[in-house]
Amino acid sequence: MTDGRSNLVSTLPMKKLKQMILRDGVALNDHVLLVDSFLNHQIDISLMTEIGREFAKIFADVGATRIATVESSGIAPAFATAEAMGLPLVVMKKQVSTILTEDLIQIPVMSYTKGGTYLLTVKRKFIDKHDRVLFIDDFLAVGEAALGAAKLIETAGAAVAGIGIVIEKAFQHGKKRLQEAGYAVISLAAISHMGENVIEFEGDL
Amino acid sequence: MTDGRSNLVSTLPMKKLKQMILRDGVALNDHVLLVDSFLNHQIDISLMTEIGREFAKIFADVGATRIATVESSGIAPAFATAEAMGLPLVVMKKQVSTILTEDLIQIPVMSYTKGGTYLLTVKRKFIDKHDRVLFIDDFLAVGEAALGAAKLIETAGAAVAGIGIVIEKAFQHGKKRLQEAGYAVISLAAISHMGENVIEFEGDL
Repeated sequence: MTDGRSNLVSTLPMKKLKQMILRDGVALNDHVLLVDSFLNHQIDISLMTEIGREFAKIFADVGATRIATVESSGIAPAFATAEAMGLPLVVMKKQVSTILTEDLIQIPVMSYTKGGTYLLTVKRKFIDKHDRVLFIDDFLAVGEAALGAAKLIETAGAAVAGIGIVIEKAFQHGKKRLQEAGYAVISLAAISHMGENVIEFEGDL
Repeated sequence: MTDGRSNLVSTLPMKKLKQMILRDGVALNDHVLLVDSFLNHQIDISLMTEIGREFAKIFADVGATRIATVESSGIAPAFATAEAMGLPLVVMKKQVSTILTEDLIQIPVMSYTKGGTYLLTVKRKFIDKHDRVLFIDDFLAVGEAALGAAKLIETAGAAVAGIGIVIEKAFQHGKKRLQEAGYAVISLAAISHMGENVIEFEGDL
């Protein structure tokens, strides 16, 4: 078991994902990438299952006891990862249901894409202080959501076992912020540069 | 292939699900059921995988070409069903992202649990007019969301192959409304009566 706070070895290439990003993704401008034909609005199940297996391989030795994600587009990759690792999944909420009445942990998170702030929320009883939580999300930009999730996990008294991201917009430096805060971050596809109809990856395709 | 608009044979018993509802569910009053320890906030992956396989069995012969659900708590059972059936999944949105700029289909839906109305939204290109869409959701109460989803599918020119619900609050008569509108509805657990700390099912446990 490695220390979840140390850095894991660099991003694994996940060729199929990168090819789908190039083929079906649409870079609207230098920071907005549409991948809703396979990742979040329409979901390619076999790709998602492979993504889950890939995270399970990457994080096999971090001693994770639980997967966490943020609703709603994190749910599919987190579900596939939880399935591949045989672990329970907790979905952090952005909107608090009126029937969530019990002891809650809440962390304010600034939304980069939508503007404004939401309260990232979890019932305290769904994260045990002995848990080592692997956080999975679809996108990493400036890192606000992942930092909020990590803070929430630690507020529950648990440890962050690692952070797994499907698509990282590396030029927005979220990974650097998370690594400086001590977290092990792996993204399956790291985009180094984007512009209208241009998508470039870090490393090999 | 049966006609998706005819009624399938009555609800299959899904014993494990009903037992978890009795053991871990909390009836707060005569209409609010908390099942967030295994169904939507914390997710029991092996239960969800079984739910997906069960829907795949039930709807094996309806000729479905696509699974659809509504974010966010429908995603896990719909993902498991899509995985079991080898079909693509489309997640209808309740909130329209600022980057959803293309041709959209939108249907106003009254939210029974949260109050107010939201616009159920899908990009037109993610539902083909030749599709037969199986709609999966975690809960059925008065049937507003499912009726909205069905209307949205038909507005896209596609057919509703069936409606699969994990937990039906039968005393709120959503199934009746959907059946009267011509849809084949199956729920895995139909609750006939609820009260503070009382949960009773239709049919056998």
